[in-house]
Amino acid sequence: MNSFGKRFVFTTFGESHGKAIGCVVDGVPAGLKIDKTFIQSELDRRKPGQNEFATARKESDKVEILSGVFEGESTGTPIAMVIFNTNQKSKDYTNIKDIFRPGHADFTYFHKYGIRDYRGGGRSSARETVARVAAGAIAKIMLKELDIKVQSGVLAIDGIWGEDANFDFAKTSEIYTLDKNAEDRQKDAILGAKNSHDSVGGVVLVKIKNTPIGLGEPIYHKIDALLADAMMSINAVKGVEIGEGMNSSKLLGSQNNDPIFQDGFSSNHSGGILGGISNGEDIDVKVYFKPTPSIFQTQQSVDIHNKEVECSLKGRHDPCVAIRGSIVAEAMAALVVADMLLLNMGRNMENLRKMYVSTLPSGK
Amino acid sequence: MNSFGKRFVFTTFGESHGKAIGCVVDGVPAGLKIDKTFIQSELDRRKPGQNEFATARKESDKVEILSGVFEGESTGTPIAMVIFNTNQKSKDYTNIKDIFRPGHADFTYFHKYGIRDYRGGGRSSARETVARVAAGAIAKIMLKELDIKVQSGVLAIDGIWGEDANFDFAKTSEIYTLDKNAEDRQKDAILGAKNSHDSVGGVVLVKIKNTPIGLGEPIYHKIDALLADAMMSINAVKGVEIGEGMNSSKLLGSQNNDPIFQDGFSSNHSGGILGGISNGEDIDVKVYFKPTPSIFQTQQSVDIHNKEVECSLKGRHDPCVAIRGSIVAEAMAALVVADMLLLNMGRNMENLRKMYVSTLPSGK
Amino acid sequence: MNSFGKRFVFTTFGESHGKAIGCVVDGVPAGLKIDKTFIQSELDRRKPGQNEFATARKESDKVEILSGVFEGESTGTPIAMVIFNTNQKSKDYTNIKDIFRPGHADFTYFHKYGIRDYRGGGRSSARETVARVAAGAIAKIMLKELDIKVQSGVLAIDGIWGEDANFDFAKTSEIYTLDKNAEDRQKDAILGAKNSHDSVGGVVLVKIKNTPIGLGEPIYHKIDALLADAMMSINAVKGVEIGEGMNSSKLLGSQNNDPIFQDGFSSNHSGGILGGISNGEDIDVKVYFKPTPSIFQTQQSVDIHNKEVECSLKGRHDPCVAIRGSIVAEAMAALVVADMLLLNMGRNMENLRKMYVSTLPSGK
Amino acid sequence: MNSFGKRFVFTTFGESHGKAIGCVVDGVPAGLKIDKTFIQSELDRRKPGQNEFATARKESDKVEILSGVFEGESTGTPIAMVIFNTNQKSKDYTNIKDIFRPGHADFTYFHKYGIRDYRGGGRSSARETVARVAAGAIAKIMLKELDIKVQSGVLAIDGIWGEDANFDFAKTSEIYTLDKNAEDRQKDAILGAKNSHDSVGGVVLVKIKNTPIGLGEPIYHKIDALLADAMMSINAVKGVEIGEGMNSSKLLGSQNNDPIFQDGFSSNHSGGILGGISNGEDIDVKVYFKPTPSIFQTQQSVDIHNKEVECSLKGRHDPCVAIRGSIVAEAMAALVVADMLLLNMGRNMENLRKMYVSTLPSGK
Repeated sequence: MNSFGKRFVFTTFGESHGKAIGCVVDGVPAGLKIDKTFIQSELDRRKPGQNEFATARKESDKVEILSGVFEGESTGTPIAMVIFNTNQKSKDYTNIKDIFRPGHADFTYFHKYGIRDYRGGGRSSARETVARVAAGAIAKIMLKELDIKVQSGVLAIDGIWGEDANFDFAKTSEIYTLDKNAEDRQKDAILGAKNSHDSVGGVVLVKIKNTPIGLGEPIYHKIDALLADAMMSINAVKGVEIGEGMNSSKLLGSQNNDPIFQDGFSSNHSGGILGGISNGEDIDVKVYFKPTPSIFQTQQSVDIHNKEVECSLKGRHDPCVAIRGSIVAEAMAALVVADMLLLNMGRNMENLRKMYVSTLPSGK
Repeated sequence: MNSFGKRFVFTTFGESHGKAIGCVVDGVPAGLKIDKTFIQSELDRRKPGQNEFATARKESDKVEILSGVFEGESTGTPIAMVIFNTNQKSKDYTNIKDIFRPGHADFTYFHKYGIRDYRGGGRSSARETVARVAAGAIAKIMLKELDIKVQSGVLAIDGIWGEDANFDFAKTSEIYTLDKNAEDRQKDAILGAKNSHDSVGGVVLVKIKNTPIGLGEPIYHKIDALLADAMMSINAVKGVEIGEGMNSSKLLGSQNNDPIFQDGFSSNHSGGILGGISNGEDIDVKVYFKPTPSIFQTQQSVDIHNKEVECSLKGRHDPCVAIRGSIVAEAMAALVVADMLLLNMGRNMENLRKMYVSTLPSGK
Repeated sequence: MNSFGKRFVFTTFGESHGKAIGCVVDGVPAGLKIDKTFIQSELDRRKPGQNEFATARKESDKVEILSGVFEGESTGTPIAMVIFNTNQKSKDYTNIKDIFRPGHADFTYFHKYGIRDYRGGGRSSARETVARVAAGAIAKIMLKELDIKVQSGVLAIDGIWGEDANFDFAKTSEIYTLDKNAEDRQKDAILGAKNSHDSVGGVVLVKIKNTPIGLGEPIYHKIDALLADAMMSINAVKGVEIGEGMNSSKLLGSQNNDPIFQDGFSSNHSGGILGGISNGEDIDVKVYFKPTPSIFQTQQSVDIHNKEVECSLKGRHDPCVAIRGSIVAEAMAALVVADMLLLNMGRNMENLRKMYVSTLPSGK
Repeated sequence: MNSFGKRFVFTTFGESHGKAIGCVVDGVPAGLKIDKTFIQSELDRRKPGQNEFATARKESDKVEILSGVFEGESTGTPIAMVIFNTNQKSKDYTNIKDIFRPGHADFTYFHKYGIRDYRGGGRSSARETVARVAAGAIAKIMLKELDIKVQSGVLAIDGIWGEDANFDFAKTSEIYTLDKNAEDRQKDAILGAKNSHDSVGGVVLVKIKNTPIGLGEPIYHKIDALLADAMMSINAVKGVEIGEGMNSSKLLGSQNNDPIFQDGFSSNHSGGILGGISNGEDIDVKVYFKPTPSIFQTQQSVDIHNKEVECSLKGRHDPCVAIRGSIVAEAMAALVVADMLLLNMGRNMENLRKMYVSTLPSGK
């Protein structure tokens, strides 16, 4: 239940205030150069405590590779990575030790497991996603070798949409926004909510460029279905769209269909996916994040004995999870594409024969 | 790739114009009374050719149970069901034998597999979903035994939204709409498009009532993630929302959080799911369908030799796939919940011990 | 639970006296020529009622392909096959309707599922294996394209071992024995037991020739582990060996190690597998079948109310399940190798790059 | 590929001379008291360097729990454990850096992955099994709660069989032998081989006591098939038997069938499994280990350039892998049983209803 993928598979573990968070990435082809600096840089993009738009929790998030890499290359064996938690402050949570936070998973975790890991939400904390980013970095390294590029950025915050989708700008923006012109208004919305002890939601765009035709395994491993699965598994995500998405439900077929020409499609309402298989155009995924449930206003709730109480949080929380969430969404997209890529091999006999021959030692 | 689920698993097979469509449902507990009439009635809801709002293809869609049921009860072994195709008209497709339909999966299937099954889209046809409905009927029978109810209906067509969500009305409506007051306008939109040889999109609501707290297996088998996966795997679906969905990205935390009282939550922005686990409230899923890509206007396309051509379809197609799609979405939701229900067993030692004792013969 | 494999996956269904037995084979590369005559010929090898050494049950075992094949070639979609049961005689079982047969699975099925499908053992009957042979035939067709050959035959019956391993002879022998010189004695043992209303066990050899180096996915998808899994899943199998097998436990390392020369290994104690990965030599698997539990002598047993009773069988049973079991073992081996073959693709970056390029359309 | 199980799933990682070995155990019910001392004691049983019958490599094998346990109890989230390698001596391997050891997996790993991790066999080393034992300890803790007991010991070494199966004695024996009377002869065989720079094989018995009726999921998750899979995945195992095993192939049905009485079976040729489902008797598995391939005699081999060379090993190796292998086999058996136990829940509606009710909060 803590593994994802069929051929490029990753498993994650760890809780917000436990000893460590980590992952095991299985199915990585041997001979891939594993650039640890790149992995660390990906974690740094997701790292908390970097500015006023994110949680104040300070974590260095230093990744350690425990296995699967020898002399700088993947060996074909599982790559385990671990990030030790260093800045847990469990006592931030003592006052809500027995109280469920509205909008938070601690209610359902308690009722399901019968266990109350009150320390920062335990496994349900978004801190868990650091392991996804580490795994995603491996996927991105593999995709880069094949010239496939996965990018992300923030489209909207608190209903304030940008119009541009400038991924280069997003990398430099403190809130990873895709539109320079919207940045100030979006920042204001975040700080406004923060000052009112409140939080805001946001929308993230993930774009996958240079995808070959053919990724996706119908009927139940379609690439859009798995992208939706992957995105919806991220904390606070409540909606996912592919391409034209919701809007396509308002269009006529004649408007929504993408005409086909010799050199490809002349529009991309489909978001790069037809019948669950990539069609060679950019894959566009929009991911909708709810506002962070952990806010600092007093809220109505119950405790573990089902007694009604007021819930007043302390602790450190992102005023807008969509920002750092975009890095997680990007990582998950890379992981899905890596899996689809490996599953696509051997899809027909011509491909299988070529692959097969390339596995034979010359002269055999 | 054609199986779905981990514990309540179904596998489907069959193409639009092949000999038969069918499924194998595995993991059904023994001793479940299998009401074949009910399964047939579910297929009848999805059946084509019933009125002017659906394709004219006439299929009786008679289900045959091949295995897994003895003396009216499930035996714990796989239940195979088959529906023979009776009204294929492959020659409808001879004029587009070598031409890709814009917006259709035949482009990607051809490039992936190197095979052109031009007969009605082959496996990529929505006809495949008849097998999902048959499997879903088994899930629904099991859920009914535990008083869990899965319902669906149409919220919007061509951007025309109803305001009510009356599932009883939806059952009687030719277009499965949830709002009596919107029905005429929605019907007009469909027929208007149909008369212009065009098609429209729509939005479907699936509601799961009476769900216990605790369904969903974090981190990568969350119930919302699997619902998104299941819905996005349905033909023509381009967006999925849980609860407040997209709209939650515009709300403040203080607006979006659901206050908790002794007898439950006082609102349901979460759509019945927190941290990927059901919280006991209704689970609400919205599913966005694009307009049917197969329209009867002349469109720009290429053929299998990548030569630019005009594409003019014959054949029989739904002017709005969302209508019959709602039955499929309902089936998929039932299948996800059934799987989550079985996976939830043994979630903690108290539950495991009780279950374990109940598997022991008395006196042992 | 009724599916096997990760990439080349098959699912089976059906009971001894149900309507039909069948399978769905998923993951078959597109463009494979599916020779239905070959599939039928494989089923014919396993077919009951052919001579006095097998059960008298007469089944034509005609296979019907329901999906996944178009114009004689696989399309990349699931291949469903069905074999209708025609010669069920459920009343053979009325006298033991409530009685458990010693050595038979009906005891455990009843206690597990709470259901008594007394008709010939239901799903626990070896009749179920007809579906494995159908699936295995597809695997063999794929392997043949790559020059990999899977063969089987009977090594021993009732402790009478042959010395030769002549697979061509085995094909012509009524008891599929590998040694012409042992045939008469082995036949006598079978008929002797049959005449005493008893049954005998046997040993089967499966040999896979022309395997490339590299099949098998450590640590938990080693090819030897999966072969053991596959073989032990066959009715009546109680032991599995690879290569030197049990005997290797008596040898010294210096005796058991296979020296390596430029053109390969000079002996094959390893049975073609090192560390769970094929080494290019023949893969040898020995499979040990217990005697058929269904014998016609009166035996001590209990009924479903746990009352002690005498059990006297009627019905039609193989006096030696190992004979037809060899065809099943061969099919299972082919299915494992097909799966390992597809999983082996993309094992290292060099291989992945070549495969990847071959999936790209020329000019892209 | 490095995960095992469907519901109680473990994933392992790490190489012989890498930084660490570890595992992630997923699906453990919440609320299980995790006794770290017990886990350590299991590792200590497998620990190298304890006496002259094992490798001289000194590893403290201290286990560290990274996640999934809070206040001494499992939380329902994945339990990650890590054992850091402390006594690697990679330079032992410099002289065979480019040479394949006969009988060893380094030949196949190199050809499969194109990578040469010469340091002690990398992932193919039996050192990997330390992670299995850690995972197995968690399984044993869970089984103990339900009074199920998994035991192991050595039956034979170098063809010298004991007659007794005394598991208490095995615990005290340096070679884990089950028969006190055979111990000296077995020890002599080991030391004799060791002095000749050779190695010996052996046979291990695993016995599972107090198993309920009903464990195992036909047709392709039978408990015997999964035990065979699990055992054959252990380094150096070349054969597996259930119950009477190979010998049953020489018996008549009337000899091999176990008569059934009101209080159970009067013999146990079946080894506690009928039709792939446990029948309530002891489950007996015999596991055959080949002699350690790494011996200190000069052997014929090739190097990575396929040049013929003499192979002379240094390093530290067990003269008989079966001894410590028995602890690994026991762990794997516990892991299989734990998985089967969870999969067995919800097998019929009566059981499901009881379980379901126990997941509902009282009053709902």
